[in-house]
Amino acid sequence: MTPDYNIFSAKNTVSYTDLQAAALRLSGTANRTPVLTSRSVNQRTNSQVFFKCENFQRTGSFKFRGAYNALAQLSDEQKQCGVITYSSGNHAQAIALSGQLLNIPTTIVMPDDAPSVKQAATRGYGAEVILYNRLETNREEFANNIASDRYLTLIPPYDHPHVVAGQGTAAKELIEEVGALDLLLVCCGGGGLLSGSAIAAKALSPNCKVIGVEPQLADDATRSFHTKTLQTVRNPNTIADGARTPYLGKITFPLVLHYVDDMVTVSEDAILRTMFYLWERLKIVVEPTGALAAAALLEGIISVSDANIGVIISGGNVDIKEVGKLFERL
Amino acid sequence: MTPDYNIFSAKNTVSYTDLQAAALRLSGTANRTPVLTSRSVNQRTNSQVFFKCENFQRTGSFKFRGAYNALAQLSDEQKQCGVITYSSGNHAQAIALSGQLLNIPTTIVMPDDAPSVKQAATRGYGAEVILYNRLETNREEFANNIASDRYLTLIPPYDHPHVVAGQGTAAKELIEEVGALDLLLVCCGGGGLLSGSAIAAKALSPNCKVIGVEPQLADDATRSFHTKTLQTVRNPNTIADGARTPYLGKITFPLVLHYVDDMVTVSEDAILRTMFYLWERLKIVVEPTGALAAAALLEGIISVSDANIGVIISGGNVDIKEVGKLFERL
Repeated sequence: MTPDYNIFSAKNTVSYTDLQAAALRLSGTANRTPVLTSRSVNQRTNSQVFFKCENFQRTGSFKFRGAYNALAQLSDEQKQCGVITYSSGNHAQAIALSGQLLNIPTTIVMPDDAPSVKQAATRGYGAEVILYNRLETNREEFANNIASDRYLTLIPPYDHPHVVAGQGTAAKELIEEVGALDLLLVCCGGGGLLSGSAIAAKALSPNCKVIGVEPQLADDATRSFHTKTLQTVRNPNTIADGARTPYLGKITFPLVLHYVDDMVTVSEDAILRTMFYLWERLKIVVEPTGALAAAALLEGIISVSDANIGVIISGGNVDIKEVGKLFERL
Repeated sequence: MTPDYNIFSAKNTVSYTDLQAAALRLSGTANRTPVLTSRSVNQRTNSQVFFKCENFQRTGSFKFRGAYNALAQLSDEQKQCGVITYSSGNHAQAIALSGQLLNIPTTIVMPDDAPSVKQAATRGYGAEVILYNRLETNREEFANNIASDRYLTLIPPYDHPHVVAGQGTAAKELIEEVGALDLLLVCCGGGGLLSGSAIAAKALSPNCKVIGVEPQLADDATRSFHTKTLQTVRNPNTIADGARTPYLGKITFPLVLHYVDDMVTVSEDAILRTMFYLWERLKIVVEPTGALAAAALLEGIISVSDANIGVIISGGNVDIKEVGKLFERL
């Protein structure tokens, strides 16, 4: 079941002013993550490449930015009642920690087969975790029902203007630190980080081309972008778990269409090779989704030369032992 | 065969002024590596911990600082003839890259069983690699003979005042960035990084206690420190390959005795657990030797509270696939 959006109605839901306000809210709470450079990457690409390392963000991914920005703007009553979301991944921990910091009760709906370490990490931030059976239950409906019953505010993982504005602050920091870019590469799942980043780039570095990167196996946003019609994907078997989202949101799709210049895809092997390269050469632990944007560059999907290129490393939450086994394939 | 040093003769071989001069030489060439913090580490230690990440240094370890500082001070004639060193590890690549940058020919003596990737990396920086049989040959004698034959200047891995001064610039940067420390933890192999760091700490933060950390399996420096008599260790079977050095040097031993406050050791399991923790929580790739200082803190070997603590992460050069296999043990 594909939602039917009016894609041209919503492109003004988030503006650069919203990103500026988000940056103020996050100041002193979110990490101003480091920007790393690598001479071997610069040589390989004949360009100057700046990696914005959101794997060093609190909870290990950029998701903290959007979650905190959304929770901080709730009314006193909403804060008292609490919030709910559905996520087995980085958004869950981001909401849980944000709730803990802002003294807002949080409830996270997770599939009952979510790794126990992720359940534990989320509970560790004080969230209540409610499990559901992935095969029998529609998670959004399930979460909406609990939200109504308990008067909780639902904060979805990406399709929310305050979430988008928060995510955009990473690219804002990057460009403020390194100056104008010719190209900005951003991974794409539900499009929150991508649309937020594109809003930042177009405001701060108007000539910067923004390209979204998806796994080939989860190319719904790329197809949506090129056809200008919402496309979906179902349970894609990509290792980039943050990009398994079935479709862009009704807020993010119009923003992506309006602000993003192009979308490309990368293979599973390219993702794995790029992860390995980033671990080995840059000495940083990057999750599969976090390697997507770099993969488009390092695997030559995007050919550039003599350019200033920003690459968002979105996160570093992986089961290191599992990744070790994947690397043995290389 | 243990060398016989007069341990009190040489404590003035390196001064803080030498570190300042080294910092100027390195400025714009060495990376000013980032300092990372972690709220989970701070909670766990009830302190404020600053990780100086030399795994992000050029060639992947602090060794570049000392190598470059030494090569930059050679006479024109020495530069023209070239340099030689013995190392299968980080010092080899550091000398090779420094030579490349300064246009000095470099020769590296390596055991013939050194990993082919390390041989290739060293050759990649333009060095000539000469292999020897580890069982039949004394590497120092072998290198000295080639040095005499070819008029090469030998730059040893740690027992050289310019090398020590260069290594000390990492701690200098750390303290300049984060302010006075109560405690500075530094790994110890041959004592170059440790003595340089201690000189920096005592100059910039006089009340800072400096503690060196060794593997239990390679505890020669700890025993030397406590007995004030040079002790040795032979081919220790520690995973911390940077700390397999047989004894402190005739320059580094007096400096360690003079400037360092204490020495402790950590077990192999502690090293591995700490590496895993740093990879998983800090999202950084750290080699076993690079995890030594952090292990003393995180494993409770050193008990502190409410302190400002600096921890030097010395490097990140590991075979990631091999480490993956080691992590499976945990």
